[in-house]
Formats: sequence, structure tokens, C-alpha cells
Amino acid sequence: MKRGMLTSTPQEDGYRMPAEFEKQRRVWMCWPERYDVWRNGAKPARLAFARVANTIAEFEPVTMITSEAGFSSAKGMLGSDVNIIVLPYNDAWVRDTGPTFLINADGNLRAVDWTFNAWGGNVDGLYHPWDDDDRLAGLICDRLDIARYRTEGFVLEGGSFHVDGKGTLITTEMCLLSKGRNPHLNKSEIEKMLKEYLGVNKVIWLKDGIDPDETNGHIDDVASFVGEGEVVCIDEENSDSPFFYPSKEALRMLDSSTDCSGRKLKVHRLCCPKNLVRIPDDYQILSEDGSKCRRPGDICIASYANFLIVNGGVIVPQYGDENDERALLELQKIFSDRKVIGVDTREIVYGGGNIHCITQQQPFAG
Amino acid sequence: MKRGMLTSTPQEDGYRMPAEFEKQRRVWMCWPERYDVWRNGAKPARLAFARVANTIAEFEPVTMITSEAGFSSAKGMLGSDVNIIVLPYNDAWVRDTGPTFLINADGNLRAVDWTFNAWGGNVDGLYHPWDDDDRLAGLICDRLDIARYRTEGFVLEGGSFHVDGKGTLITTEMCLLSKGRNPHLNKSEIEKMLKEYLGVNKVIWLKDGIDPDETNGHIDDVASFVGEGEVVCIDEENSDSPFFYPSKEALRMLDSSTDCSGRKLKVHRLCCPKNLVRIPDDYQILSEDGSKCRRPGDICIASYANFLIVNGGVIVPQYGDENDERALLELQKIFSDRKVIGVDTREIVYGGGNIHCITQQQPFAG
Repeated sequence: MKRGMLTSTPQEDGYRMPAEFEKQRRVWMCWPERYDVWRNGAKPARLAFARVANTIAEFEPVTMITSEAGFSSAKGMLGSDVNIIVLPYNDAWVRDTGPTFLINADGNLRAVDWTFNAWGGNVDGLYHPWDDDDRLAGLICDRLDIARYRTEGFVLEGGSFHVDGKGTLITTEMCLLSKGRNPHLNKSEIEKMLKEYLGVNKVIWLKDGIDPDETNGHIDDVASFVGEGEVVCIDEENSDSPFFYPSKEALRMLDSSTDCSGRKLKVHRLCCPKNLVRIPDDYQILSEDGSKCRRPGDICIASYANFLIVNGGVIVPQYGDENDERALLELQKIFSDRKVIGVDTREIVYGGGNIHCITQQQPFAG
Repeated sequence: MKRGMLTSTPQEDGYRMPAEFEKQRRVWMCWPERYDVWRNGAKPARLAFARVANTIAEFEPVTMITSEAGFSSAKGMLGSDVNIIVLPYNDAWVRDTGPTFLINADGNLRAVDWTFNAWGGNVDGLYHPWDDDDRLAGLICDRLDIARYRTEGFVLEGGSFHVDGKGTLITTEMCLLSKGRNPHLNKSEIEKMLKEYLGVNKVIWLKDGIDPDETNGHIDDVASFVGEGEVVCIDEENSDSPFFYPSKEALRMLDSSTDCSGRKLKVHRLCCPKNLVRIPDDYQILSEDGSKCRRPGDICIASYANFLIVNGGVIVPQYGDENDERALLELQKIFSDRKVIGVDTREIVYGGGNIHCITQQQPFAG
């Protein structure tokens, strides 16, 4: 057993995952570096990541993780208030590879270090190898000198659940019951793990996410808690969109759900881009054996729900779509006491994720 | 879901793992190549691996897996009847990284492709990374063009269990209930997985193995089925040896156990080396970040129980110990219809394993 690794569980020790809308200490990110995921030597993606990081830094501290090789490009593009550290990792999805931070009533910080297998391991994972990504959460905890709960063999990613911080969690069956994660566990056994490791007592299971072939349906492209008893969920109006049925089904289920205190959820609607965002015609990638290959014309998982809540702000993806402004207005109405800011993240969505996927908030503790 | 990957279970499909003493088609091995596990550029270990491979080849076909770089050294040391193929892997423990082969009543071949995490993953794994090792079973199945059952997220190694082919399995709690494998599963849940994936209906749980810090107590250094209703188990006579208590406890439990058909097990005793085998004084290793470091004077896990049964033969470790000959005689008495042959495997045990750990038998099917 390594230093800092706990054998008890968060539930036993009185730790819980706070909601994203609770006070934060900082946001962690990783610099995009692989040429087989990010086109043109990752430069367009870096500009987009830097826009996200520099925008968050207006609200709270940001720590950017880079490789030795990536350090100078990060230094050049990031504002002086973004802290940069060097650690090994495989790709830049720190929502899924970083720690899931926990706090207790005394204001102490710990984290869950889930086993990470690139969204499906040898069954339908998106790149190989993923070993450095699997170690990243532990390295971040070591940096912070906090203890962690390692769920060796139990596979989960931070993007596959949202919590209200009071005891309610939302997730999708498509992802958590997928064949590439924990197929030997049934739904109630997985629910038990969520309760044990995130300190919740009520799990709301939605059916599908909108990216069956990528993360197998992460919740963070579909719905999110925006406050106690309140969620926002995408409402795809175009019945020709592949997101239509998952969106309508998610709304139907959320509309009929109650949270851990028995209160009926208030469900806000959030529009989708008017037109499907697609991989551009001039898109070329240095293809390697290890990673999923995207081609011109492929549909991107472009959702406005993949925003990040920060202290006093909400950072929202924008796609150069005619609904961009509408999404910001809808979210500003929901988050009336925060500043809602849009960032063009098309180059990030071409790589398979968005703002929420590339960030990991560290809660304020004590 | 990748080609050749099944979503059913062996139990459902009528497949079972045959006993090692049933007829075999070939034995798979991997060439030792890493300089941070095998001393002196792996040359002494290669000579020992070659001795094992060439000895097995007297009884049945052997396929040796190497890297591109290792191919020519393997070619030079292996007999012409050992087949060599190139595949990626991290280290040479194919018992634990290779497929666990299964057959059905119609003589068809399939395999289980367990998740492999280097004997404990980020908790207490022995090297990092292990991603190519985790993929090896799948690549071998692809080579053979057979379908496989991938247990994504469920961690297990072939060296941690032995079966009688009729429905009985022996294993250790120390290994299967370790913190670095499937700590979120309890004993009965793990037993259910063994039954489902190996086609057994009775699991005999021993308490401890003899290498808590390496494989966390693999059964294949302690006890093995030698026939239906018959096992052999190490009997350490020296009460100062760290193997004494685990050995006596294993004997006690086996002596009182019945197999799946309700018959009391016949338990043969097998001596241990007279003197503890230790890492030699002149031992030096190119130390890297990734792997466990062994030092002069460290106790090696030298057991005569780590033999391999092949068609008409049994290949047994030898340590230059005064009990070497006695062990061969004891085993020859048990395996009266097979030729028992000793091979000096000190250079393999210095790396942490032995003959059974570096081989994987493929049963004869049809």
C-alpha cells in the first residue's frame, strides 16, 4: 500500500463530494499535447485550452499540468496568473483522469482516485496506453499532500456523474453499465460504490448520454446540477439530431425525479446548437495506432451543458453556431448571481470533449 | 466492442478451464527482455528461459513471444523446434498476462482475458506501465483466431488459481482479496466470478501464499492439482523459514477439504529447498522507476511447487540446493506416468517467478 492511500471508504470517514456550485480553491487542467488527438501539432487546441484557462483565471486560480516538452508552449500562451507544473499524463482530460475531490465537515480535503481505462479499456477504450493517466490522480494528491481512496479495479471517470453536494447524484446507465468498465458489477453494486465513495444516498439514473461511441454517454454533456434541487438539461429541438431522443428521455426522467431530500427537481431547459457541429473538411490528424481516429464530416459531441461552474462565473462552450448567444442567455437566467462567459471551444470538441471534460475543480476546504 | 470479444460468460456458454494435467496443444512463453528486472542485460535469464523452453519442446510445441529487438537472441538460444513470434508485452510472465484457455464439450477453444494490473496496479503493482501486458491475452487470442471473454475492470492472474478441470478450484485469500485487485468485491462476489469464468462450482480458499510482497500470494508457489481428487502442497520443515506457517496452514486446510464431487482430497507433500535461496551478493540491476528493486541478500520465492505439467512430463525448478534431487523424487512418485525433469531456474527466481509463472499451456481442443 502506497503512502497516502486509504483502505477505508469516504462514507465511513465522513467525506463527501461537494457540488460544483460550492466554493472552489482552484481548477486543474492538462495541456493538450498528443498529435494523434489534436490536429496541427495541437496548436489550435492549445489556443482553445489557453482561452479556457485564462478565462477561469479571472475568477480563481488555475494550475496547468504539462509535459517537459509542452512547458514552454503553455508558458507562452497562458496568462501569468496560471500556475504551470510538469507531471506525466497521456491526454488532457483531467475531469476523468484527475482526482475527484472530497471534503468533510471539518474542512479537510481528500480525493477518490478511480481506476481509469481510457473510457472502456481493451473493450472500447479511446486510446492506448492510459497508464500515466491512471496515475495522474495519485500524483496530484501527492502534490497537494492529501490522502486518497484508490478504487483499484473499479473503473469510473469524473465526467460520468454530477452531484448536488447534499446526497444526490445523477449519472447514465449507458456509461456506468457499459461493457468496458465494470461489467461484472450490476446496477445496484455500482450504485453502492457511488454512495460509498462520493458520500451520496440517492442516485438518479438517466438512460443514455449523447456520445455512445466516445465516453459511452457521460452525464456532463447532458445535464448538471445548478443548485440544490435544480438541474439543467439539454433540450434538443431538432428531431433529426442524434441527440434528440437521449435529450427528451433525460428530460422526462429528470422531470419525474426527486432529490435525496424527497423534493421534486426543478428542471431547466438548455438549447443545443442549431446545426450539428462536424469535423471540418480540412481536418487532418497524425494517426497513430493508439487513439480513435476522427474524420471530416463526423458529428461532434457539441453540447452547451459541458460548462464549468467557477467562483462567481460559468464558462460555457461556443461553436460559432446561431444558438450560441441563446445558450448564454438561458444559462445567465439560471445562474443569475454568476457571470456567464462563452469561449469558442470548437478545437476542443474536435478532440472529443469540452470545457467540463478538460477541467477539475478543487473545492475550498476549511 | 472489439472483434472476437464475447459479452456472455463461459459458464453460460458451456466452457470450462481444463486441468493442467489434461492433454495440451502447446505452451506459450515470453522472452525476458527488461534490464530493470533481469540482470546483466537479461542474458542469464534468457539462458534459463531457453533451458525451460527447450526442455518443454521435448514433450510438446512451444511458442516464444519476443520483441523485435529480442528476436535474434531468442533465435540463437532456442532450439529449432521452438516457434518464435513478435508481439508487444511489458515483461515475461505469460501465466499472468496470457489468456486462460477454456474448452467446451465439442472441443472448441476460447479464453478468458482478465484485466492485468501488474499484481496490484497503482496500489502495490510491481512495475509500471503494464498496458502491453494487459493487451497480450487479446493478441494471443487474435493470433489463434479464437473468441475471448474480457473481464474489463476485474483483475486476476493465471498464477492465482489452479483447477482440477472437473469443477474444483484452489486459490488464496491473500491474493484474491488483496487491496490492489478488486477491493470493492467481497469474497463471495469474487468466488462468483471464478465460477462464472472458469466453469467451476467449488472454490477451496487457502489463506496465504508465500510471497505477500510480490504476487500477494499466488497459489502456484504453494499447491497444485496433480490429478482428480489429488493435490500436492509444499511442506516447509524449517520453522525459521518465512514459508513455514503458510505451508503448514495450507496443508491443514487442504487435508480437511473435499473437491466438487464431495471426495476428500488426497494431499501429497513436497519438500522445500533446504536453505533459503537469496539474491546473490554480486547481483546488480539497472534500476528504473517502473519496477520493484531486488537487492543482494533478499529472500527469493523458491518453491518446487512452481512446476509445469506437460504432455508426458513435469518440468521442475532446481536451485542448486541439497533438496533438489529429493523434490524430483517426490514428484516422480506422484507423477508416475510422466517424466519428471529438473531445470536450474535460479536466474528466473531472482526476477520474481519460476517455471509455472513464465509458461501458459494451451489445451488440446477437439
